[in-house]
Formats: sequence, C-alpha cells, structure tokens
Amino acid sequence: MLDLDGDLPIYQQIRDQVVAAIATGELAAGDALPSTRQLGADLAINFHTVSKAYDLLRSEGLIRINRKSGAVVRRDPNSGPVEAGIVDGWRIRLRALLAEAVAHGMSEADIRSHVESESRELRTTERAPR
Amino acid sequence: MLDLDGDLPIYQQIRDQVVAAIATGELAAGDALPSTRQLGADLAINFHTVSKAYDLLRSEGLIRINRKSGAVVRRDPNSGPVEAGIVDGWRIRLRALLAEAVAHGMSEADIRSHVESESRELRTTERAPR
Repeated sequence: MLDLDGDLPIYQQIRDQVVAAIATGELAAGDALPSTRQLGADLAINFHTVSKAYDLLRSEGLIRINRKSGAVVRRDPNSGPVEAGIVDGWRIRLRALLAEAVAHGMSEADIRSHVESESRELRTTERAPR
Repeated sequence: MLDLDGDLPIYQQIRDQVVAAIATGELAAGDALPSTRQLGADLAINFHTVSKAYDLLRSEGLIRINRKSGAVVRRDPNSGPVEAGIVDGWRIRLRALLAEAVAHGMSEADIRSHVESESRELRTTERAPR
C-alpha cells in the first residue's frame, strides 16, 4: 500500500489513502481510524509518521481526534454542504496542478480526459460493500 | 505575490508561480530566471528558500540549472510531447485532489465547473504580451 521509495512522503501517502477511503465511502463519518501505534505497527513505520498524517487530516477538517476514542472520521460526502474555506484552498491547488500539466505540454483534451477517467474511477469504487 | 502567512510553504509558492508563468507563456524555454540571491532580495526572503524552489523545478524537469547562466526554463507548452514519467506522477496527484473534493462533499458538477473555470483562466492569461 505504501511506496517507501516513492516521491511522496509517507505521511502524505497515509493521508491520501484515508481521503480516498472517505471519498469512496469505505470510511464513513463516525468510523474510527486505527490508533497511531496500531497503524504504525501494521505498516512497520514510526507512529509519529501516522500522527503527522492524522494531524493533517484534522487540520483539513476530515477527522477529529478525541483523547479517549482516538481519530474518528468527521465528514464524508454525505455530511452536508462543503464547509467554508475548503473550496478556496482546494481551487488554489487545482490551479497549480492544471498549470503544471500545461507547462509540461499536456493538451486541454488530455487534461480533460484524465480528470474524467479519475473521476469515473472514484465513482466506480464508491459505495463498495463494506 | 507571496503569502507569508499562508498554508503553503514559501518555496512551494515560488515554484507554483514559476510553473504558472511557464503555463501561460510569460516564461518560455530558454528564458533565464533571476538568480536565487536576486529573487531572495527582491522578495525579502532567504535565498536558500529560492534554491529549494529551483531544485524542485529542476527535479520536475521544467528548468535546468547551469553553473554559469543559472536557472533557465527547460520546457514550455511548445517543447513537444510530455516527457515519460510526468503523466503518471501528475495523475496520482490529480486523483488525490479529486478524492479530497469528494470527501469534503463537493458534487461532480461542482468539481467539473471548477476545473473548467480554472482551465479557462489559464487559457485567458496565455500568450499575454510580454
């Protein structure tokens, strides 16, 4: 699951996988994430790395961290309208990602087709049996 | 231009602005970037921060760094087909960005409309008089 030799830092990969699991419905609001020690042990990585991923998810508003129950999914696609402030930050990153594609020479049609196929991928996985 | 109190690290903001300038045609292949010391002084930031941005752009294949001439734009949208390896990495980040939007409750129509309007924005700025 983790690419230890990849370009993306491990905490970012963990964060991305939790986000993907929320997006596809594999994780729903109220679901508990494994403890940082448990997930660290399962993945054979330092639990501080897991903490860093969870802190990021909390700062993004997707999970909450309780002293007792640990990390719990706070929002999923069914949790109501997007919260204020989320879209602006997301659009800035979208703009940077699109500019990068154009700078590298991807055509508008290429970009559109990548967006379509990745969206389709997310939809297909969505609401998979849990 | 820089948001010193923003969530994005400064080097990332510099990198993003160079990428945007290449995407819109403001910077073309062969154009020299300011020296790290010059840009650091202009922006009132440490030149190491500028170096970090330039190193990232070099690792992404968008600029080259010569001992004599400094940082020079290596590729622009007219430099021919996208180089191998670029699209895969880009798609992984696209997937993560789309999953994030869905997790936060953005609808497919919202996402599509953001992609369209940001793409339009890039095209409008494109080939602006230099």
